[in-house]
Amino acid sequence: MSKPLILVTNDDGITAKGIASLVEAVREIGDLVIIAPDKPQSGMGHAITVNNLLRLFKSDQYPGTVCYSCSGTPVDCVKLAIYHVMHRKPDLIVSGVNHGSNASTNVLYSGTMSAAVEGALEGIPSIGFSLLDFEPDADFEASKKIIREVVLNVLEKKMPENICLNVNIPKGKYEDLKGTKICRQARAFWEDKFDCRKDQFGRDYFWLTGEFKDYDGGEDTDIWALNNNYVSIVPVQYDLTAYNAFSHLNNWKNK
Amino acid sequence: MSKPLILVTNDDGITAKGIASLVEAVREIGDLVIIAPDKPQSGMGHAITVNNLLRLFKSDQYPGTVCYSCSGTPVDCVKLAIYHVMHRKPDLIVSGVNHGSNASTNVLYSGTMSAAVEGALEGIPSIGFSLLDFEPDADFEASKKIIREVVLNVLEKKMPENICLNVNIPKGKYEDLKGTKICRQARAFWEDKFDCRKDQFGRDYFWLTGEFKDYDGGEDTDIWALNNNYVSIVPVQYDLTAYNAFSHLNNWKNK
Repeated sequence: MSKPLILVTNDDGITAKGIASLVEAVREIGDLVIIAPDKPQSGMGHAITVNNLLRLFKSDQYPGTVCYSCSGTPVDCVKLAIYHVMHRKPDLIVSGVNHGSNASTNVLYSGTMSAAVEGALEGIPSIGFSLLDFEPDADFEASKKIIREVVLNVLEKKMPENICLNVNIPKGKYEDLKGTKICRQARAFWEDKFDCRKDQFGRDYFWLTGEFKDYDGGEDTDIWALNNNYVSIVPVQYDLTAYNAFSHLNNWKNK
Repeated sequence: MSKPLILVTNDDGITAKGIASLVEAVREIGDLVIIAPDKPQSGMGHAITVNNLLRLFKSDQYPGTVCYSCSGTPVDCVKLAIYHVMHRKPDLIVSGVNHGSNASTNVLYSGTMSAAVEGALEGIPSIGFSLLDFEPDADFEASKKIIREVVLNVLEKKMPENICLNVNIPKGKYEDLKGTKICRQARAFWEDKFDCRKDQFGRDYFWLTGEFKDYDGGEDTDIWALNNNYVSIVPVQYDLTAYNAFSHLNNWKNK
């Protein structure tokens, strides 16, 4: 029986330790096609490159795989992989491992997760992995074990249709993790702050900073799971329709 | 009674005819703060600028308003407006008018709609408007009437919490529009194609193109409404949790 074809991507760029760890984790499970950004693309959300050209560069970063870096966003990488490089849909897409959390509403800003959402739009089982550690040399040993468990579950038991998975992993040793929890996205939000500085000409420029605040408190959320040392798995859908708002809106007077 | 404070943004850039038309449409209704990208930012989705600095430029594009152009994405514009320029939340955010459709799954790629989703995350009533005409000199006369109707509904009857609206308007005269319909997001997707060209050094580069295909067929979708000359209004939520996948996933064996 032939091995599954697995597309690997990320948003921290093709040389990040996170994607190297992801490649190691799934290398034995499938045949790998790796297409990842040639530079960091954190916070790119579901951006695609429509007003500029795209470049694709053959890479020998991961011997024994089909490997390219790409000038575009994570979603561009998925589109180029399917419609230009492979000319078929892979059996699985894995994205990450992101250096830093993509829990709660971070799913909207995350390039790592948007690659997985794009996979779901294509009807491909897709998983985004993130480790709660921003450090470039973060320890991904526990993540690798979790990745293999989740990937084998997806390949053996299939994914429900039209969704992807947002998997976030606490820092620390595998032995210390309490387990995995299927969760909902917490009601938590960025309280933004802009750090205003002056350039060498005395002109203002800004850096986006801020604090992520949990307004939820539920024990069924990803934030709760992570705070309590569980791996959180949130099933993510791309139908954004707020069905429960229909009755309110149908009472409006419009043309 | 003081007028409502309305934040206006878009993704086609501050000089686009679409945002000029939006400003005209809401000018009488509220006090306006306009912060929009200094260049086209179509397809930027929910991208934010985290690996680069942001610039804000005072503009006299729209006299009688507080107006800035911004070097960042539509979501950056919303964040800068709330946390740096206004130091308060506006009573309403309007985004657009986008030159081209943002119906169905285009909501995910759209900078126009991501600005509205960011507003919803902040608990602010927010509306994205799009006209089904890509032309730079598209006719926004009917759009302006629709905008006023929808905005007055939102201000008078309030929005359900935690959602924003995705309003798409067919091309043509106001008199020819059949009315508005509250819709769900159609199951329609891009079938991508990459146009591969050679640069002056003989190296490949790519343009993302493709065709948008409706796989839905339902008569309650935004695509159906637009095809039948109705204005489509889809309530959009930011909780991406796929609650109906929980039972399947809870049967998995994990750590």
